[in-house]
Amino acid sequence: MALIVQKYGGTSVGSVERIKAVATRVAATRAAGNSVAVVVSAMSGETNRLLELAAQVASKPDARESDVVIATGEQITAALLSMALQDIGVRATSMLGFQLPVLTSSVYGRARIKSIDADRLRAVLDTGAVAVIAGFQGVDAGSSITTLGRGGSDTSAIAIAAAAKADVCEIYTDVEGVFTTDPRICPAARKLARISFEEMLELASLGAKVLQIRSVEFAKRYNVPVHVRSSFSDALGTWVVQEEAGMEDVLVSGVAADRNEAKITLQRVPDRPGLAAKIFGPIAKAHIVVDMIIQNASEDGTTDLTFTVPQNDYNRALEIVQPIAAEIGAAGVKSDTDVVKVSVVGLGMRSHAGVAARIFAVLADEGINVEMISTSEIKVSVVIAAKYAELAVRVLHKALIEESFDEESA
Amino acid sequence: MALIVQKYGGTSVGSVERIKAVATRVAATRAAGNSVAVVVSAMSGETNRLLELAAQVASKPDARESDVVIATGEQITAALLSMALQDIGVRATSMLGFQLPVLTSSVYGRARIKSIDADRLRAVLDTGAVAVIAGFQGVDAGSSITTLGRGGSDTSAIAIAAAAKADVCEIYTDVEGVFTTDPRICPAARKLARISFEEMLELASLGAKVLQIRSVEFAKRYNVPVHVRSSFSDALGTWVVQEEAGMEDVLVSGVAADRNEAKITLQRVPDRPGLAAKIFGPIAKAHIVVDMIIQNASEDGTTDLTFTVPQNDYNRALEIVQPIAAEIGAAGVKSDTDVVKVSVVGLGMRSHAGVAARIFAVLADEGINVEMISTSEIKVSVVIAAKYAELAVRVLHKALIEESFDEESA
Repeated sequence: MALIVQKYGGTSVGSVERIKAVATRVAATRAAGNSVAVVVSAMSGETNRLLELAAQVASKPDARESDVVIATGEQITAALLSMALQDIGVRATSMLGFQLPVLTSSVYGRARIKSIDADRLRAVLDTGAVAVIAGFQGVDAGSSITTLGRGGSDTSAIAIAAAAKADVCEIYTDVEGVFTTDPRICPAARKLARISFEEMLELASLGAKVLQIRSVEFAKRYNVPVHVRSSFSDALGTWVVQEEAGMEDVLVSGVAADRNEAKITLQRVPDRPGLAAKIFGPIAKAHIVVDMIIQNASEDGTTDLTFTVPQNDYNRALEIVQPIAAEIGAAGVKSDTDVVKVSVVGLGMRSHAGVAARIFAVLADEGINVEMISTSEIKVSVVIAAKYAELAVRVLHKALIEESFDEESA
Repeated sequence: MALIVQKYGGTSVGSVERIKAVATRVAATRAAGNSVAVVVSAMSGETNRLLELAAQVASKPDARESDVVIATGEQITAALLSMALQDIGVRATSMLGFQLPVLTSSVYGRARIKSIDADRLRAVLDTGAVAVIAGFQGVDAGSSITTLGRGGSDTSAIAIAAAAKADVCEIYTDVEGVFTTDPRICPAARKLARISFEEMLELASLGAKVLQIRSVEFAKRYNVPVHVRSSFSDALGTWVVQEEAGMEDVLVSGVAADRNEAKITLQRVPDRPGLAAKIFGPIAKAHIVVDMIIQNASEDGTTDLTFTVPQNDYNRALEIVQPIAAEIGAAGVKSDTDVVKVSVVGLGMRSHAGVAARIFAVLADEGINVEMISTSEIKVSVVIAAKYAELAVRVLHKALIEESFDEESA
């Protein structure tokens, strides 16, 4: 008997009708002879409604109490789906973060999973019941409720699948799978049948909003096969799996645009050892994740230091950086939120040289100025002006995905 | 330093503005040098909204899962009030049923409190913070969320006050205290300054909706002084306390009407020993509380057996009783939901004879037929047709409360 973990996102459980539809799908999976654990998000819109309520009550809502409020969203969905299952004759039990338990750190609003005890889950599944687990939430060592941050339900699902040694974690969403790029921007985008954890990690971190990045890290670390698919159809989606033979044959698997970046430049910083630590230490301490960092030494012994942070951390990052800039004698701080990061990802880039050069050439042909560059083994990212986002995605997709087979076979 | 437990009901926390107003009141109590634990209900309307959601998802929502859904109401209020307090500079921490913990039975929807561990509460209070506790909820031995049934937040508050050995439990509500009868029915009703636990118990069980009956039982058992007052004004309310010298001088302290009763009669039941157990055993097993039971033996060896149950248990009670009636050879089952129980309560009735006779005389004068009678040491209750409810309350209030001092001093 296979153990299947299914995760349903907010739009998949966004209404009473949708919850009943999900119940039918879960029932079918159970009837096929599988053990089923379901992880659910809050009904779409609910988390925002709750955050809004908190914002009305307090000018700066306490982080611990915010988590207590928003954790109710998933709690309600889990119980409603359990009811809906029982209503069609399928035994089901809701389980909350504190009941599994899902033990996390105490960083409210963006807690990290430390451990999951799967014993109680297994006990529920062993009775033949479906376990319906509230995603996105856990408890810290002091039994305070925590949440994992936006998109955390994916992480919950895959971490639970890993802890329970599930055969597959199915991520149900409102899209049909992982695409080579956003189909709303580029009609030529196509669904990928399979993609490696590594590529998915790069795409997830780059704004392909299909899977939350931490969830992919969990899937990779514990080798949990993930199947991303639509809860609105029965079509197969995209399998996210360990790298397999033949995957490198595809040069580029995806092009992604991430608008959630803001750029901060410290101008003419004296080029002394230890300054980077002085700047990025306090930012890390504020739990702000810096994405790209670029430093170019100039001839006069100073350097421009540029980095990017998520847009919602931008104001806090500026507040932290400005006094430091003054202290270390930087000429000034320049910043820009009107940027986009466009990235090209593919396992094939490991063995094929020249992809970066082609990217720059394609962008230059369109007159798009590249402001920052960062590369990894399987990825090239560029920061450009936000207004070029769609254009850049389309021309890169055309040059590197639509036309790549022809060139390679040529 | 006194320890004050304050409980705020649904209308007292019914909006963002009300929650802020409550925060101000709690802050003032704390600033006066008291330790403060606050117990909150769900925002008014929220529990019904959640029950409605459950009813849309399932034709017969599972009881355990219903509790998981509706417990979110108090959870949200507790966290919002904590935020609001912190926003005005008062340290505060929300605590949920599983966090105290409040250990209850597993009868979902109407669980009973088994024990409350006040150690964690005391630890929070000892830091100088206000503890804001979600009322109405607990956990059973298996860590499943339970709720105490409608009005259960009063019970939570007084049980917590008892466990923490609080000096007073203040119950904030939308009325100014306990009245001699419902002022909306009888404009001559007046606020009582003090009332004994015993009288309050009788009034609470009779539909004076100020305090939930189980909460008064807790208060009496653990001798917790209760102060019922309005969250909309600073006026003193009604103290509910142990019986004190002089309290018996007042003949009647209240007149109450309870519309939440339904009457079921088993006609011409053979008058054999053990039949009552056969009838009421299954009803008790279904957790239906029978209020009045009246049996009159007739001459032909049969008896009419009449009893009342809460209206929302009426259908279930009928379903249980009908096959039993057939089995034991009753002539039939008659039932009536169009009744009201009107009761007169007062410690003075212990030592003053003739109150019951006066009640019957007053009702007879108005042509009101008494269908059932039940008496205790300090109470006389009659079941009459529902249409006479207001009239009966007014004439009894006039005869026994407004005019009683004159007669006694005459």
